[in-house]
Amino acid sequence: MPIYEAPVRDMQYVLHEVLGISRQDVPGYDELTDDMTGAILEEAGKIASEVLAPLNLPGDREGCHFENGCVRTPKGFKEAFDQLREGGWTGLDCDPDYGGQGMPYLVGTAVGEMLVAANQSFMMYPGLTHGVYSTIHAHGTEEQKAKWLPKLVSCEWTGTMNLTEPHCGTDLGLLRTKAEPQPDGSYRITGQKIFISAGDHDLAENIVHLVLARIPGAPAGTKGISLFIVPKYLVNEDGSLGERNPVSVGKIEEKMGIHANATCVLDYDGATGWLLGEENKGLRNMFTMMNEARIGVGIQGLAQAEAAYQNAVLYARERLQGRAIPQPKYPDRPADPIIVHPDVRRMLMNQKSFVEGARAFILWSSILIDRAKHMGDRDAEGLISLLTPVIKGFLTDKGFEATVEAQQIYGGHGYIEEQGMSQFVRDARITMIYEGANGIQALDLVARKLGSDGGRNAMAFFEMIKRFIKENEDNEALKADFLDPLKAASKRLQEAAMYFMQAGMKNPADALAGSYDFMHLFGHVCLGYMWAQMAKTSMEALAAGTEDKAFHEAKVVTGRYYMQRQLPATALHLDRIQTGSEALMALGEDQF
Amino acid sequence: MPIYEAPVRDMQYVLHEVLGISRQDVPGYDELTDDMTGAILEEAGKIASEVLAPLNLPGDREGCHFENGCVRTPKGFKEAFDQLREGGWTGLDCDPDYGGQGMPYLVGTAVGEMLVAANQSFMMYPGLTHGVYSTIHAHGTEEQKAKWLPKLVSCEWTGTMNLTEPHCGTDLGLLRTKAEPQPDGSYRITGQKIFISAGDHDLAENIVHLVLARIPGAPAGTKGISLFIVPKYLVNEDGSLGERNPVSVGKIEEKMGIHANATCVLDYDGATGWLLGEENKGLRNMFTMMNEARIGVGIQGLAQAEAAYQNAVLYARERLQGRAIPQPKYPDRPADPIIVHPDVRRMLMNQKSFVEGARAFILWSSILIDRAKHMGDRDAEGLISLLTPVIKGFLTDKGFEATVEAQQIYGGHGYIEEQGMSQFVRDARITMIYEGANGIQALDLVARKLGSDGGRNAMAFFEMIKRFIKENEDNEALKADFLDPLKAASKRLQEAAMYFMQAGMKNPADALAGSYDFMHLFGHVCLGYMWAQMAKTSMEALAAGTEDKAFHEAKVVTGRYYMQRQLPATALHLDRIQTGSEALMALGEDQF
Repeated sequence: MPIYEAPVRDMQYVLHEVLGISRQDVPGYDELTDDMTGAILEEAGKIASEVLAPLNLPGDREGCHFENGCVRTPKGFKEAFDQLREGGWTGLDCDPDYGGQGMPYLVGTAVGEMLVAANQSFMMYPGLTHGVYSTIHAHGTEEQKAKWLPKLVSCEWTGTMNLTEPHCGTDLGLLRTKAEPQPDGSYRITGQKIFISAGDHDLAENIVHLVLARIPGAPAGTKGISLFIVPKYLVNEDGSLGERNPVSVGKIEEKMGIHANATCVLDYDGATGWLLGEENKGLRNMFTMMNEARIGVGIQGLAQAEAAYQNAVLYARERLQGRAIPQPKYPDRPADPIIVHPDVRRMLMNQKSFVEGARAFILWSSILIDRAKHMGDRDAEGLISLLTPVIKGFLTDKGFEATVEAQQIYGGHGYIEEQGMSQFVRDARITMIYEGANGIQALDLVARKLGSDGGRNAMAFFEMIKRFIKENEDNEALKADFLDPLKAASKRLQEAAMYFMQAGMKNPADALAGSYDFMHLFGHVCLGYMWAQMAKTSMEALAAGTEDKAFHEAKVVTGRYYMQRQLPATALHLDRIQTGSEALMALGEDQF
Repeated sequence: MPIYEAPVRDMQYVLHEVLGISRQDVPGYDELTDDMTGAILEEAGKIASEVLAPLNLPGDREGCHFENGCVRTPKGFKEAFDQLREGGWTGLDCDPDYGGQGMPYLVGTAVGEMLVAANQSFMMYPGLTHGVYSTIHAHGTEEQKAKWLPKLVSCEWTGTMNLTEPHCGTDLGLLRTKAEPQPDGSYRITGQKIFISAGDHDLAENIVHLVLARIPGAPAGTKGISLFIVPKYLVNEDGSLGERNPVSVGKIEEKMGIHANATCVLDYDGATGWLLGEENKGLRNMFTMMNEARIGVGIQGLAQAEAAYQNAVLYARERLQGRAIPQPKYPDRPADPIIVHPDVRRMLMNQKSFVEGARAFILWSSILIDRAKHMGDRDAEGLISLLTPVIKGFLTDKGFEATVEAQQIYGGHGYIEEQGMSQFVRDARITMIYEGANGIQALDLVARKLGSDGGRNAMAFFEMIKRFIKENEDNEALKADFLDPLKAASKRLQEAAMYFMQAGMKNPADALAGSYDFMHLFGHVCLGYMWAQMAKTSMEALAAGTEDKAFHEAKVVTGRYYMQRQLPATALHLDRIQTGSEALMALGEDQF
């Protein structure tokens, strides 16, 4: 059975030593002292390790049951969900006006990584609920907020997002579900939605579906889509549950992974719903939820990599096989542990340098979200909007790769389900697909985000990196190993952006053909930037004679590994980008 | 349900237009005319598409059953196996003296790719049998050959290989299974073997296990391991089946994939066995089987990629979503098929350029095997020995990547088991692990193969590439797009080899730290060489006014894509190699 241990020390390091959060001018951050975040993370870590992680493998094996039109979650899920709810973990960063704890988003991110690492399928239930909370909070009327939010914050009710239909996923302009206005101001929703995660279950009394649908007479395409609140059970004036709304589960899908989260076909057969936000502005409003979900999925990529990595390390320390070269490390044992072998190291270092870099990146990004949300900081808002597809696409691609390498360290044992390494790979695989497949993230990045506001956000990003390099260029130790490679990588990113502007003007396909490589190039620069910051912090700590020498030395080494072995991929990505679209687009459809 | 269509045209192209096999001086090749191979491939393709492919997804869903100590294969497997046997497909390249058809290995490879693409789990039963056939053929006494080979060739009996034990896989020196000599010349085998593919089933009357074990008093480590023939049922003098040998199935594993092939724990409880080859030379003799199996696994990597690719192409042509840029391609349809989008093209071209390059590589390599086997060609033997870890490691890593990209094209539908794309990924995943995990292949390549015979084989490889480039350097069309990048890539490979020789002398970890990247660098050069040859062939065909213009144009474009987008990875691999082992090995075991 795989273990999970919350990386409290590493998170504290990023939050306080690297990012210095309690000194930042973000509302609520002054309360985030070392002790405070330490206490929260320790508590969350316990729930992750002791409550959620033990249900992960059994949940995968058992899966969800579809019985008499209802979904039953695996054994133990209900009790764990109650425990999570009762501990107030579901409303950590929610508005206190609706029962939330009002903590910064940043805290939610750190806690979220832990809980998701322990059990991704389980955490999708409260995760989607949080997305519905945010969307109603942003776009609902006062009455709607009062009616729905408290129950969503407490997870007495959970939420889902309903976009996909059998014939449309990415291209929502094609959607057909219809919403007919009723005299009482409600709508009758009719249509079929598929791939609805957490679409039904036995964890909560009610489920609040957010549903995209068309009002008759609405414009064609994405401009005619509206957003509706459609509960599983109607809610009476006094807040008690009323009649069952005619939305039923057609079936649950058998999937490669996330078996413990029911992926439902939902049939709406004249179900009662209420318009959320303005008519025909549904897609724009749904993006509140999607943007949050995309960052959440990025966290899933990191989290699965972290969980898999922890187990790979344990296995590499315990599995005795072969001998260190040039001489045995443990001559008294029948063989050395496989962690002595360079190629095993390579895989462990790949994973370690990814998860620690990604963790810093996601926590740093969360500060941008807090700044945008609580301070109206337009620069932060612009930057996080630019980075959202990178967080989603890069962290999930690399997170999946990391789980595959962790599994590889187990050899044949990694392929056997009872070891749990297969589950990490299978669960991580969905993160590259849902909430906009990673190719769509790359498209969003290149075709929308890069040039938005006249390229202002991208320029700000480059400036930020440049400033950091300039501020530290006298730091000899940092320069050769970190600043120079970061500078080179960042220059490649700018060159790629420039190429898109020039080539893309003549032939848009030239830019689109490089979008995926650009997303990866961008991701590497972000993680390289994080590693440079961490190296700086840890070098300073070492110079100051820190007591935690081993930790900081490991940081500097791991960072150097990233700069040496991962960052050079930026050159390959730029090379590919600059080949344009000619060979890529030349074949006729029947030449494949 | 996924489809599979045998790539007969592409195989014929490689065999005859590129490699000109019937003009080669290899015994039996003169009979391999275009018509002859065409007829064989068409027939094999029918079995693949009509008999084996339809059992693939159902076999995955049903899996093997373990009942009363015996394994039952999924519905339809027995009938299909009989059909395969009766068609003579199991003994295609086997010795006619024992009932084989005596065809070249090359033909077995081409047919093998098809059958494995259609159903990997199924083909492991005859595949392992073939390995046992080869090992007994190479190392058995005349009596042993007469006794075992005919039934193995016909697959009336199947075979397995028994190496792994719970505490040892890679490091076979640790193995404990013991073999006690009996007065009649037989041995009593006692011990536990795990991960035995095709270890038990209901497809054949008898199973011939090849088992590694220690004779009491044998030297410690790998020098004291002997190889034994241990049948499930003892065989009487007249060839009829006798008593059940005490080898029993402890359990079958639940695995990530290849569900339709039983992976068994086998408990040997004083089972009767016979020494195969010399005492204490077991591991060396087992390498006959392992080398064959490694190439077979490389074929699996290619085959799963091909099958997944075919389905991805179909889906990309049919799924309507979004619009081509700058204008719709099919304005009369509700949306364009996703094959119009550059990022979908990117994934398809990655797959296409890999599978076609890999196919040429594996067929070209098979000629080396035929030369070594039937002509005693030492150069060919040296070269294939060098390339075996590249074939196994590179083709399975890239094959897996290709299945993941094929699945990605399906979006959310790719994650649903009923579409079958998940199975390709799950089945392909094992190919990176079994028959020596890919890290072990890289180690074999760098630590053993590269320097063997004073580096003679590596030098011959470089010379071969150089010669090809030189012979064609006046071909302007070929030069810029193919020869120049091939030259650059090949130079990087030589540089890496040189680095290993120099750095590795001082610190072996520097060489081992780069072994994995070297294997990939090597693989890319091999595929680049294949694409250069194919481009040359197809350019000549186009210049000569071929009737099959679309096919040859596609070849040139796909090759150009490989050179532009894949071959530059060689620079990244060299970069990584040259960073050595310092950061990679610096951490203490408790710093992870």
